[in-house]
Amino acid sequence: MSARAGIAITGTEVLSGRVRDANGPWLSDRLLELGVELAHVTICGDRPADLEAQLRFMAHDGMELVMTSGGLGPTADDLTLEVVARFTGRPLALDTGLEQRIGEILRPLTARWPGLDAEALRSANRKQALVPAGATVLEPVGTAPGMVVPPSAGLPAIVVLPGPPRELQAMWPAAIATELFRAVIGRGADFGVSTLRLFGIPESEIVATLRLAEASIEGLDALEVTTCLRRGEVEVVVRHEPDSRSAWEALGDLIAQRHADTLFSRDGSTVDEQVAGMLGEGERTIAIAESCTGGLMAARLTDRPGASGYVLGGLVAYADEVKAGLLDVDPGLIERHGAVSPQAARAMALGALQRCGADVALAITGVAGPGGGGEEKPVGTVCWCGLAGDGAELELRMVLPGDRAEIRDRSTTVGMHLLRRLLRGEPGPRA
Amino acid sequence: MSARAGIAITGTEVLSGRVRDANGPWLSDRLLELGVELAHVTICGDRPADLEAQLRFMAHDGMELVMTSGGLGPTADDLTLEVVARFTGRPLALDTGLEQRIGEILRPLTARWPGLDAEALRSANRKQALVPAGATVLEPVGTAPGMVVPPSAGLPAIVVLPGPPRELQAMWPAAIATELFRAVIGRGADFGVSTLRLFGIPESEIVATLRLAEASIEGLDALEVTTCLRRGEVEVVVRHEPDSRSAWEALGDLIAQRHADTLFSRDGSTVDEQVAGMLGEGERTIAIAESCTGGLMAARLTDRPGASGYVLGGLVAYADEVKAGLLDVDPGLIERHGAVSPQAARAMALGALQRCGADVALAITGVAGPGGGGEEKPVGTVCWCGLAGDGAELELRMVLPGDRAEIRDRSTTVGMHLLRRLLRGEPGPRA
Repeated sequence: MSARAGIAITGTEVLSGRVRDANGPWLSDRLLELGVELAHVTICGDRPADLEAQLRFMAHDGMELVMTSGGLGPTADDLTLEVVARFTGRPLALDTGLEQRIGEILRPLTARWPGLDAEALRSANRKQALVPAGATVLEPVGTAPGMVVPPSAGLPAIVVLPGPPRELQAMWPAAIATELFRAVIGRGADFGVSTLRLFGIPESEIVATLRLAEASIEGLDALEVTTCLRRGEVEVVVRHEPDSRSAWEALGDLIAQRHADTLFSRDGSTVDEQVAGMLGEGERTIAIAESCTGGLMAARLTDRPGASGYVLGGLVAYADEVKAGLLDVDPGLIERHGAVSPQAARAMALGALQRCGADVALAITGVAGPGGGGEEKPVGTVCWCGLAGDGAELELRMVLPGDRAEIRDRSTTVGMHLLRRLLRGEPGPRA
Repeated sequence: MSARAGIAITGTEVLSGRVRDANGPWLSDRLLELGVELAHVTICGDRPADLEAQLRFMAHDGMELVMTSGGLGPTADDLTLEVVARFTGRPLALDTGLEQRIGEILRPLTARWPGLDAEALRSANRKQALVPAGATVLEPVGTAPGMVVPPSAGLPAIVVLPGPPRELQAMWPAAIATELFRAVIGRGADFGVSTLRLFGIPESEIVATLRLAEASIEGLDALEVTTCLRRGEVEVVVRHEPDSRSAWEALGDLIAQRHADTLFSRDGSTVDEQVAGMLGEGERTIAIAESCTGGLMAARLTDRPGASGYVLGGLVAYADEVKAGLLDVDPGLIERHGAVSPQAARAMALGALQRCGADVALAITGVAGPGGGGEEKPVGTVCWCGLAGDGAELELRMVLPGDRAEIRDRSTTVGMHLLRRLLRGEPGPRA
């Protein structure tokens, strides 16, 4: 039985919905990888009584591990450590070495502002160097250190982390490497996690394969296997100790054998990473032509740093007359087959390929709704076409479920998978 | 003193971070408008014991009102009503009228699948028509009804809402119109909320104006005023009873007078709504040329249903050579001034205007990072240009803070404000 854990997110901006919390979902994923069972996520504002009530609730409901995020800054409303110290009965004491290290981080930042009040600065610096008795310090990534506070009678271990996602994520490896953390989750350092990803398959088919694996693979019960759906893909996450390696490999082989045409990642890589890798390493350039996605496909491909190495450009041909002007789509073709048709998608892809002088092109045209749907082409009807300069070509037509935003988003995921298969010289994904 | 409230979000997909919760932030905004103080948001999976623990926590911490979202479907793991009934001690009873109404909603959906098990269907239908004693039913928007469960000794009132955001949002007006809800929040039906929005101003300047208002406007203390930052804009939310109307109007006038050049909305409308309205009603068409935003600006403009009425198209000119090919940008101009320059932005806007035959064009070019920054043009440097066929023209150059994703997102917000001012024939926003 694995440890039960909770996550407490603090910050008035997050509670009010002004800032979208990125830390809860990110920490959820990390806990899943570690095989820790997440039971509660809570969000409160910058009010000490509310955070303390949430910690008390988590302890009362049997959490053995609680992560907090936020409230570690130098200002008066950054109260997390004070609350944690009071809640755990561990008085705060100044760590002078830490105070000095924070001071050194601050020096170049403050040198730019000669007018700053030196005393106020010193006191802010000192506030961030206060450590609850018995806690392990996690060195600052920004200016705020994190803490791992040991469990005590009836109370969970508390991992205190900063609010900015970049700082929290950079500090996480140090947190899980602490002896305290390892002891709570009851795992050695050599425990591993692997993720398989599949596309174009219902989750139930994977569940059936896992049942088959239970009956046929020896030692499978030493693995912890979780499946979940994410943006139309199925993820299979497996936690394994060194001595269960052969069972894990047998499971991976079974899935690869039964689901060869839908398994696209055995090493945890995402389809976006794979497409970017194939374009970048193959020195192949890409152009995009899109209608219903309105720029989202190009935006997704340029989301990654370094995208300028292979993305040449995109054409958002939203109006039909612009499909002719920007992409050389024959207006007669649209008249005959409609703007949402395999023929239009192919003409758009060809236009983008030629106009941008790219090696590969992807086109998407569809009915995102809520209006514009018909008997023959209901809302959600989308056509994709991928073309390569060497003559390779893939086409797909599907009716996607969901509302306008979901149809637009899912269209880019299908587009990524079409691209991946085109770049690998494989047949298209299942409709 | 207003009621304290909590929001409990259920769903394993949300807890695990696979699906991003949209209901917490949306309900937060609605509570803010109603002047209800939100203290806790909690998230749990589809486990009855965890939801019950969260409800107990909310009651124990003094919440008078709790909203739940999710867990109202027909399947066995949809357990919210069962938990709420047990927690409040209000037995579930079948509402036969409701059962019939749900049956009528289901009929056309199930007619398509003649093979469905009629008995299983009837039992699922019946499950969704179970109502806790004393609760007010909120009619289904999808197939699941919501409930308003009255408060009882030491327990909060509980508003039970469905998980799909579209259904939850459509059901909300009926929930807040119930007598039970009005009684808990202690407000009459004639209580109003107004939102002012400003762009290009630090929050501290608004806070200073509010202090001035306290000293100069009679009856101001009858208003509840909240300010907050959202994606670079400042929002001022004011709750007012009918007899404080004159104080509210005086406050609005004071803000309009002191911040004339940054106040862009007195009626709560967003900049996206205003731009869409001016384009649609003015029958003006738009084209977009973008580089660092990689399609996000076009995607934001086409996010709204009906965008095909005024968005002609967009050109994502990511590579410099494509800026010439797609947008007729003179390569010599890029050589002289760089691809991130006011000159390049203007040439891109002109290219988009002419290529798409649009009435208005917006261009964005910048350094989104993490690489590509220099001494003169650090990461975050962005240039915008808006052009209208009638000769109007606005330009802007700024250095935006944040990481790659933040710079790209903020660039589209600035782009929206530049467009708004261009369409209104006003000078550009403050850099």
